[in-house]
Amino acid sequence: MTTDYRPMWESVGLDLEAHDQLLQALPPAYGEVYMNQFNRPAGMEYFDFVVSEIHGLRIHELQQHKAAGGKVIGTFCVFVPEEIIRAAGGICIGLCSGIEIGTAQAEKVLPRNICPLIKSFMGFKLAKVCPYFESCDMVVGETTCDGKKKAFEILNDYIPVHVMETPQMKREKDKSLWHSEVQDLLNRTEELTGQKITEEALLQAIKDVNGKRKALLRLSELRKNNPAPISGKDCLLIEQIAMYDDVSRFTQKVNELCDELEERVKNSQGVKETTAKRLIVTGTPMAIPNWKIPHIIEESGAVIVAEELCTGLRYFENLVAETGENMDQTVEQIAARYLNINCACFTPNEGRMEKLLQLAEEYKADGIIHCALTFCDPYAVEANRVEKVLKEKGIPLLRIETDYGQEDVGQLKTRIEAFLELIG
Amino acid sequence: MTTDYRPMWESVGLDLEAHDQLLQALPPAYGEVYMNQFNRPAGMEYFDFVVSEIHGLRIHELQQHKAAGGKVIGTFCVFVPEEIIRAAGGICIGLCSGIEIGTAQAEKVLPRNICPLIKSFMGFKLAKVCPYFESCDMVVGETTCDGKKKAFEILNDYIPVHVMETPQMKREKDKSLWHSEVQDLLNRTEELTGQKITEEALLQAIKDVNGKRKALLRLSELRKNNPAPISGKDCLLIEQIAMYDDVSRFTQKVNELCDELEERVKNSQGVKETTAKRLIVTGTPMAIPNWKIPHIIEESGAVIVAEELCTGLRYFENLVAETGENMDQTVEQIAARYLNINCACFTPNEGRMEKLLQLAEEYKADGIIHCALTFCDPYAVEANRVEKVLKEKGIPLLRIETDYGQEDVGQLKTRIEAFLELIG
Repeated sequence: MTTDYRPMWESVGLDLEAHDQLLQALPPAYGEVYMNQFNRPAGMEYFDFVVSEIHGLRIHELQQHKAAGGKVIGTFCVFVPEEIIRAAGGICIGLCSGIEIGTAQAEKVLPRNICPLIKSFMGFKLAKVCPYFESCDMVVGETTCDGKKKAFEILNDYIPVHVMETPQMKREKDKSLWHSEVQDLLNRTEELTGQKITEEALLQAIKDVNGKRKALLRLSELRKNNPAPISGKDCLLIEQIAMYDDVSRFTQKVNELCDELEERVKNSQGVKETTAKRLIVTGTPMAIPNWKIPHIIEESGAVIVAEELCTGLRYFENLVAETGENMDQTVEQIAARYLNINCACFTPNEGRMEKLLQLAEEYKADGIIHCALTFCDPYAVEANRVEKVLKEKGIPLLRIETDYGQEDVGQLKTRIEAFLELIG
Repeated sequence: MTTDYRPMWESVGLDLEAHDQLLQALPPAYGEVYMNQFNRPAGMEYFDFVVSEIHGLRIHELQQHKAAGGKVIGTFCVFVPEEIIRAAGGICIGLCSGIEIGTAQAEKVLPRNICPLIKSFMGFKLAKVCPYFESCDMVVGETTCDGKKKAFEILNDYIPVHVMETPQMKREKDKSLWHSEVQDLLNRTEELTGQKITEEALLQAIKDVNGKRKALLRLSELRKNNPAPISGKDCLLIEQIAMYDDVSRFTQKVNELCDELEERVKNSQGVKETTAKRLIVTGTPMAIPNWKIPHIIEESGAVIVAEELCTGLRYFENLVAETGENMDQTVEQIAARYLNINCACFTPNEGRMEKLLQLAEEYKADGIIHCALTFCDPYAVEANRVEKVLKEKGIPLLRIETDYGQEDVGQLKTRIEAFLELIG
């Protein structure tokens, strides 16, 4: 970052000293993971720039938006309908974080044995090191897991939290409950922004967010080719940035990148040899800057061709119908799209099993790596179901449980390399 | 046990060798914890007998019931309405277990870092050592926590599981969802038992189960006296036995015990001096034979006067209204009673905070001990809320996180003794 953002950071209430330490940790990690990749697409330059300005330009934009009377709403889950917030002139920002920060502060209010993602967001808030968090006027939580559900009660001591009750099954009565929850969010958003959400604005927001999804789907489709035209690490980065970047600009940049990748595909160019093992990663979200597993996988010679993750396909794989004939129907169609997400919070979660089999076939995957964050019961237990289904179909699976620490990198590297040899 | 139950155990499908090992572990622990208590009420003799016949007489009764065409339904949670099962002529058995069994088998299907109660019930099933489990025709699960919710999917590979979706809030729409879930259980129970549940049978079942609750409430009331007429350990045992004993017999025996305790109260007799510290335990359920914390507490000289636990007040503290005028209203009143439970699965769970303050006052408690099973996110995170509320009111709190192992007993003893001195 060339601009001096310190006055801005101070004004949003950051602890500058702690924040300096965070910034110092980030750039070297990024350089190591991202900047030495073979035959990297030129279109990644924009996303490198976004990361280099992670607490700079985008925060400046949020502050400008707020200065003009706009609201910023933070989220921790792909279940929160961005369309609603956008239709009220708000900006929706994904706040999940993938780095150990403020652990000591977080452990004052949370148990030690809790998922690192939850500990991380609480640490970010309590240590006052996240300008996104500090820019938020409200946070929208949900009940997708016990840890988050209960942590939001504590977070509410520090910032207003509106919690959406995500159902745990997908029957008609669950659809009704969820429809009503989406309507409640709409009402609460109108209240917060002071702006009535018109049907026109909502339909436009749906088109905009669908546009982002379509660009990401286009990127996904290109990854079905061999050689892979882009690395999994780069795609994960794009999927992470999707959660907080400006929707229109991001969509345009992803589409520009896809234009480039289409040329690559035509010329059979890629980032790895055609013999590289093609893997799918599935499991818990990998929030920025958690690139640990994908980095190990791709450094080991394989290429990731799809992410069945919240920071991946679950975020963009279905579109909202753009055909709503009245407000209620439009809200219902939004609710329907989101309830389609194959989260492990559902019991059973057959959709995820079917999706994994479908992805393995369509992306010609040689194997699947199941990554669960430590202490994440929904995914760690559901791994048993994934294992069962994949075994029946003879698809190789490696199960990993890890956190944000770097202590197990050597061990994970050994296990992943052994897995790659096994499926060779 | 004097009768030879081995042929029965074999016929229900137990692994006799593994089961022998389990039985050998139980009696000495029981003797040490229970049989040396000072001035123990004579009425505890029945409950000692029930434990001595834990895999004997009661299993024999269940088998007789089954031989006569009756069904046995297992549960893992105080949210499952026993009235419904009873009204269909079924027997409802709580299957939660409080001992490390079949860990190796359980860890083949579950992650290592999961709540010991879940690991224990899976271990019991996979190791085939629980005649209650093996007597069940169906299990009714629920979605009160991630670990159980997802583990039921796996358990369903071994025994039919019907899952009730417990809501995560207590608003009108949640009440509707839960009412519908109770109705679904009723339908499923009718299907399983082949018996139509009449309004008359349901009202009778409500009266029966309310009778059990009233007896337990009477017992609770007596514990408000100083000296305490009965130990907390004994009361916990009674509350544990409540989950699987014959309803009418159990109710009668609790009432007989209460008659004896009333005499004690009249004569100012008790199990401890009037100067003994009076404590409330709160947190995760303590399933039989998990008496670890209460044993340490009472061996340290204090007396437990109430259990704000699922194996405690949450199980019996509210009655079902006996005024239902038609089937639907009766089912709704059952649903209403259960949704009143202050489980940490709800967000927020203010009712529990209010209840703790009320109990502390009514039972003249000197302090509260919050016990969470390891890896139990709902209670471990909610402990922060409990701490906040109790601090505001100046009520001393000790927070403990532990599992079914005995390795930390020395350390817990030291912490509990220090706490008792602190509140002296």
